[in-house]
Amino acid sequence: MIENVHVIGARGRVGRAVSARLAERGLVPSGQGPEVVLLCVPDRAIAEVAAETPVGPWIAHVSGATPLAALDPHVRRFGLHPLQSFSKALGPEQLDGAWGAVTAETEEARGVGRWLAETVGLRPFDLDDDARAAYHAGASIASNYLVTLRAAARSLLEAAGAPPEALDPLIQGVVDTDFELTGPIARGDWETVGRHLAVIRAERPELEELYLVLAATTARIAGRDPAEVPA
Amino acid sequence: MIENVHVIGARGRVGRAVSARLAERGLVPSGQGPEVVLLCVPDRAIAEVAAETPVGPWIAHVSGATPLAALDPHVRRFGLHPLQSFSKALGPEQLDGAWGAVTAETEEARGVGRWLAETVGLRPFDLDDDARAAYHAGASIASNYLVTLRAAARSLLEAAGAPPEALDPLIQGVVDTDFELTGPIARGDWETVGRHLAVIRAERPELEELYLVLAATTARIAGRDPAEVPA
Repeated sequence: MIENVHVIGARGRVGRAVSARLAERGLVPSGQGPEVVLLCVPDRAIAEVAAETPVGPWIAHVSGATPLAALDPHVRRFGLHPLQSFSKALGPEQLDGAWGAVTAETEEARGVGRWLAETVGLRPFDLDDDARAAYHAGASIASNYLVTLRAAARSLLEAAGAPPEALDPLIQGVVDTDFELTGPIARGDWETVGRHLAVIRAERPELEELYLVLAATTARIAGRDPAEVPA
Repeated sequence: MIENVHVIGARGRVGRAVSARLAERGLVPSGQGPEVVLLCVPDRAIAEVAAETPVGPWIAHVSGATPLAALDPHVRRFGLHPLQSFSKALGPEQLDGAWGAVTAETEEARGVGRWLAETVGLRPFDLDDDARAAYHAGASIASNYLVTLRAAARSLLEAAGAPPEALDPLIQGVVDTDFELTGPIARGDWETVGRHLAVIRAERPELEELYLVLAATTARIAGRDPAEVPA
């Protein structure tokens, strides 16, 4: 049984939450050498820190984008990526309910990775090392681009003289109603879509291309012909 | 004091929540004629239902996109658009914390609109009738296009063999951490962005344009040159 996990980078976004949770579970570094070294360092630093870490214990990183080869020359290794947006202002409760991608090359490594995921409060799933790019692209779209989407929407509320913060309960509402697609495109109301486009061209032309490509993608999701979106 | 609000369309998404809340507040139709008639009908039905409604009491619609002229020939009129994504499976609590756009042509109408907004649990703000298109475009981006964004991200997780539902706690986490922009574009990690693009082209080419325009918009938000995004 593993009792001794050493986090490197415990003051970063992920490391802070993970090490607080490990402390809650009593899994803190003891006088003996660690059984698992968990690198919570920036992606670009993983290879260097791994190379400096004595070979022997399990070693893992928490990056979604970085292949396991970055942990060379270690072979007792795995990846555990918490699929979550972390803030330093919040605590280990950020882990609760989130999922964790476990990448492993052996069944033993997978077992340790899944155990660590569950120990810190994550729901583990297996991620192939060579599927990282697709996985990380999806994660970036759902998180980083959500920030972008909100910024675009806020810009239009500002153009309307409406308070941009009024969008935040709406976004929470979309989450709470299970992301059901409603609105003009879902009901094929192209007149309203045309009015959106006209005002975007007049007031926020930098958002026209974004609006159009999202409209076409939304039309496809709604089972409509994207060619119906007004040009 | 208004004590008698009559909701038309009380079985729809919005009407259900609003009429349940009005009932909680004791504002139900009495034997007398209504003081406010609130049309919670589909946008396309507003003009017809308004034309059939006897002139006299206040009349209002709950549409974000529809101008007040749809309420002709009524002049004691206003708009109250709850900026929320409603589900019939939930109750009036969906109104709590959400904002409500009040559109009015007179101070008296604005007063009634703001009173009604607050009475049903909304935070009122003023919206000019001719600013509706920009407002509604912003609201659609933040709500409908969030559904689209999630669908695109889910498609990439499926391509990676990862559970798409793992994205939902991530999206909630982005909301909970105040939509702070992190990730490869925020830190100028164009190598990771290039790997995203390569896998999207290989596995989900229908998402390439969406990814690229979101990447360029994100770069601008991050204060970076959109021309740096790999092509």
